[in-house]
Amino acid sequence: MHKQPVGILGASGYAGRELCELVLAHPGLELAFAAAQSQAGERARIRGREIRFLEADAAPLGEAALVFTALPHGAAAPWVARAHEAGAKVVDLSADLRPGSGADAPYGLTELTRERVRGASVVANPGCYPTAVLLALAPLFARGLVPSGAAINVVAASGVTGAGYAPRPDLLFAEVAEDFRAYAPGNSHRHLAEMRAVIGGMGGDADLIFTPHLLPVARGILATITVPLTEAIDDPLSLWRADYAGEPFIELTLDAPRLREVVHRNVVRMTALPVRDVRRPTLLVLAALDNLVKGAAGQALQNGNLLLGLDETAGLVA
Amino acid sequence: MHKQPVGILGASGYAGRELCELVLAHPGLELAFAAAQSQAGERARIRGREIRFLEADAAPLGEAALVFTALPHGAAAPWVARAHEAGAKVVDLSADLRPGSGADAPYGLTELTRERVRGASVVANPGCYPTAVLLALAPLFARGLVPSGAAINVVAASGVTGAGYAPRPDLLFAEVAEDFRAYAPGNSHRHLAEMRAVIGGMGGDADLIFTPHLLPVARGILATITVPLTEAIDDPLSLWRADYAGEPFIELTLDAPRLREVVHRNVVRMTALPVRDVRRPTLLVLAALDNLVKGAAGQALQNGNLLLGLDETAGLVA
Amino acid sequence: MHKQPVGILGASGYAGRELCELVLAHPGLELAFAAAQSQAGERARIRGREIRFLEADAAPLGEAALVFTALPHGAAAPWVARAHEAGAKVVDLSADLRPGSGADAPYGLTELTRERVRGASVVANPGCYPTAVLLALAPLFARGLVPSGAAINVVAASGVTGAGYAPRPDLLFAEVAEDFRAYAPGNSHRHLAEMRAVIGGMGGDADLIFTPHLLPVARGILATITVPLTEAIDDPLSLWRADYAGEPFIELTLDAPRLREVVHRNVVRMTALPVRDVRRPTLLVLAALDNLVKGAAGQALQNGNLLLGLDETAGLVA
Amino acid sequence: MHKQPVGILGASGYAGRELCELVLAHPGLELAFAAAQSQAGERARIRGREIRFLEADAAPLGEAALVFTALPHGAAAPWVARAHEAGAKVVDLSADLRPGSGADAPYGLTELTRERVRGASVVANPGCYPTAVLLALAPLFARGLVPSGAAINVVAASGVTGAGYAPRPDLLFAEVAEDFRAYAPGNSHRHLAEMRAVIGGMGGDADLIFTPHLLPVARGILATITVPLTEAIDDPLSLWRADYAGEPFIELTLDAPRLREVVHRNVVRMTALPVRDVRRPTLLVLAALDNLVKGAAGQALQNGNLLLGLDETAGLVA
Repeated sequence: MHKQPVGILGASGYAGRELCELVLAHPGLELAFAAAQSQAGERARIRGREIRFLEADAAPLGEAALVFTALPHGAAAPWVARAHEAGAKVVDLSADLRPGSGADAPYGLTELTRERVRGASVVANPGCYPTAVLLALAPLFARGLVPSGAAINVVAASGVTGAGYAPRPDLLFAEVAEDFRAYAPGNSHRHLAEMRAVIGGMGGDADLIFTPHLLPVARGILATITVPLTEAIDDPLSLWRADYAGEPFIELTLDAPRLREVVHRNVVRMTALPVRDVRRPTLLVLAALDNLVKGAAGQALQNGNLLLGLDETAGLVA
Repeated sequence: MHKQPVGILGASGYAGRELCELVLAHPGLELAFAAAQSQAGERARIRGREIRFLEADAAPLGEAALVFTALPHGAAAPWVARAHEAGAKVVDLSADLRPGSGADAPYGLTELTRERVRGASVVANPGCYPTAVLLALAPLFARGLVPSGAAINVVAASGVTGAGYAPRPDLLFAEVAEDFRAYAPGNSHRHLAEMRAVIGGMGGDADLIFTPHLLPVARGILATITVPLTEAIDDPLSLWRADYAGEPFIELTLDAPRLREVVHRNVVRMTALPVRDVRRPTLLVLAALDNLVKGAAGQALQNGNLLLGLDETAGLVA
Repeated sequence: MHKQPVGILGASGYAGRELCELVLAHPGLELAFAAAQSQAGERARIRGREIRFLEADAAPLGEAALVFTALPHGAAAPWVARAHEAGAKVVDLSADLRPGSGADAPYGLTELTRERVRGASVVANPGCYPTAVLLALAPLFARGLVPSGAAINVVAASGVTGAGYAPRPDLLFAEVAEDFRAYAPGNSHRHLAEMRAVIGGMGGDADLIFTPHLLPVARGILATITVPLTEAIDDPLSLWRADYAGEPFIELTLDAPRLREVVHRNVVRMTALPVRDVRRPTLLVLAALDNLVKGAAGQALQNGNLLLGLDETAGLVA
Repeated sequence: MHKQPVGILGASGYAGRELCELVLAHPGLELAFAAAQSQAGERARIRGREIRFLEADAAPLGEAALVFTALPHGAAAPWVARAHEAGAKVVDLSADLRPGSGADAPYGLTELTRERVRGASVVANPGCYPTAVLLALAPLFARGLVPSGAAINVVAASGVTGAGYAPRPDLLFAEVAEDFRAYAPGNSHRHLAEMRAVIGGMGGDADLIFTPHLLPVARGILATITVPLTEAIDDPLSLWRADYAGEPFIELTLDAPRLREVVHRNVVRMTALPVRDVRRPTLLVLAALDNLVKGAAGQALQNGNLLLGLDETAGLVA
């Protein structure tokens, strides 16, 4: 099979390296270039192949059918434009073009926006937390089951790769091991705008309370979501089963999902169950994913496959 | 100083070993005996001293001024009775005598029940989660700030010693490392009855939604609590400062508390801050403690000090 | 392609589950049965497929072209015989048939014994430590570079899955995390007999000092080997390059190999370098592998591929 | 009791913070100042007390009876001189004044050099690895039991705090967790000069092969030492028992010492046992300590106590 050339900007971060691995293992893609400003000129060994990082300015954007931009928030937009002008389709993993940012790119929450992605040339890849939270809540908003003005409580925990490959003292092993803590408390996290914009688009009118935490693990996100309902639901998981029937990357379970079950896989694993002994009907929804795969590089490739007319699942491990 | 003799039943579990350590380091106590059914006859080295575990039946209960019972839930009550009949004061670390259990022992949430503990002969030591949650919520209930019928959302995470020293396959290193998961979801955890009973005693009429999680750390609990309020509060932490002024084991902070800050210490470290951008006034309260110290053995010793007429802080690290 | 049926006995342990994963992902194999005495009747979800564990007695041995026996040491030999009598080829992952055991099955240290494996019907799969140590030392023994009577010092460290899926208290998360310790010190480990027998077969006459350690990681072995030499060698790694040229599962490096570089891959990653400032010429050889892949299930599949006439690398990640 | 004033230069690193904790908990010392160039002006909360870090130039050296210099190697010597000139006694935790450095300060390996420390005004505190290795080997050199020209093999592993509080990418949680690797292989570690100089001073004439490793733990060092002997020894541990009788910070054990047994304590825990089945009589000596306590700040305080005429054990946990 003829392989389509793919380029990666920001290839030395955690999401960028994951993208390199996925592209190298993909049956229909080949790696045209991998650029990484801070490590330009250095080599990395990924899946037994040696990769040499270019400077972004030296990247032959025009040779790529598809470019993944895995650059810091704020730095991505101009590179998306350059790659697009050079004729490549683009999946941008930063927050620059996401809902709530003021920009207006098609949003690549693939299971919910597949048709819009298929026809796009630039796609905004969702944030890691929003991927978990929005896929978990969509069946409720689709049915108008969340009361207007209610507060949805999202307590989420992420492995440290979610903070990027940055040599910050608070991310050192000796600081993170045997620790656990909330950050951005009181609704001050960047991902709130993205989640609110998408929920608004679904017709939701609930408040969101979002408290992320830092876990002493390398990878994985678990979102623990409490949702008040307009009415009690007998078999809540049946809603998710109905909406996600046939979806290769949605995994439903009766047990609470564990990080160990989802790492290195492009899936969201979810359950939903009623909360007992409360006066207002309330659901607990739990959603787990690998922040670097379904929460970043894997979903980006899922979108990239659609942009290039390939099988959506190509090169991805369910 | 004359040292008072203390006995420990259930000395080989995690809480039991922590009690041994605390008693051995205590300036006013000496270890009369340490019994451990499953390891009877074995020796353990604790703080440089060798301890030999007795069978519980061989324990000279009458020689102890104070007995700590750190036995499995359901097995403790008869031993509490035997120790009490033998003339010892007793702090029971099991759930057998706690509020909501049907029994009626004085509850040893020391900062809130100090006077009742001082006059007691048997004290029910609080559970690890309830210690964090109840100390965190008390200033709100004391002021009637939680609306009747509102739902308080408690998402908590505990290190694995909270599950005890039990050779369960799901607690093996290779199962817990790099993992995170909820358990007892949908309000099915044993500690709910204890928390509800105490909250009821404070005049609270809120619902509780409690979702505990298992962390890949040895020790520590973080409770992330979202509370709807009857009205907005300007400087919420000032309430905690007022109520806990002078308390040696309550630590208030403007930042989110971290497990690393509380392990091996007999403190609850807490903060409270408003949740932004929600229609109903809402607080986020975060509380961290070491589940084996302030959440078990340390608080038990705090109560034991009071029972014996010693300084409440003796032998404890704040 | 027609897929050949494969059975697994002892499928619920760590090596057994890894075998299930590998067989399910293999392009030329299909899983005929997975038996697991202790978990018979239970189901496990592996790679998105649900597997039901049989009792070993219920396993249709005769339907399998190949059977992997991943049973406890001592329990495997009779099952190897039964599977062999039923007409299956067998790769045994226990120590029962290995060199030094008294039994005499062809030894599946594939890179060194490939031709003998190809013609065999039963293969003894090497231990995890011996795989690392013997592949690391072979180029020296092949050239007679290790002085007779010299002592080779092997200090090795393994992740806890090396101890199996056994609910032992000393393997609990809270016991292993933040710990490190030697075990079987003073040359008392089972794998010594296997290593000595193979080294003897290579004409080696050195003593072996082997000190294994338990690491707070799930997977991976690092062997740190110090070898006195008959003479100094200028570019030691060139020996390994020569002997392992073209080997898909041997990875040579100038840097010290890390566990992170080998987990989930069927490789041994090695380096060799001179020790400075010592009077006797001495090499340091470092070898890393994933104890469940190249050290167990992966190498077993490598051997199984040869037994079935398939490409040796089929279904394996280098 | 009148408390003597102590200053700390380099107080924000791991050893510096440990020193702050120890001084704050010490019954006979008070913290006069804590300087930390990179964090000057910042505050840290240590043992419930808030500490404000000064610039080193602002530190009132003359007000301290004792100054601990916990500065980077190469930067310490001038500050040692300034503190000494200002009239303080000094314990320097860097490598600048240690044996093998060319400088000539009394060496603070307290159990072996106690009398020289007592009369000194400046003491070079030993490195973490040398503390473990030299205390482990001293009983053999004292008896001339190590053959001239023999090679002593030291494979050691350290927690990441040994690398200091430096935001290096390779020390990030996501890089260290689930990893293990050798560093400075082939006898290229700085501590070799220190160990060789001290061994030479003991009359030893053996070669040293030293291979350190990085462990995924925060604290702790385990040294696994293989020593050829001039003759077999029946009960090897009896030598250590004889030499270290009455030493409060030396702990001897028949089992292999574990990191968990020594963290947060000022002890070296050791065993020695014969290696079986080798032609040349050989001992395995295992030594564990906390690299921040007995391997740095704790031993520094042990020396500081002697310099100030206090009880050597004051403020230290055995």
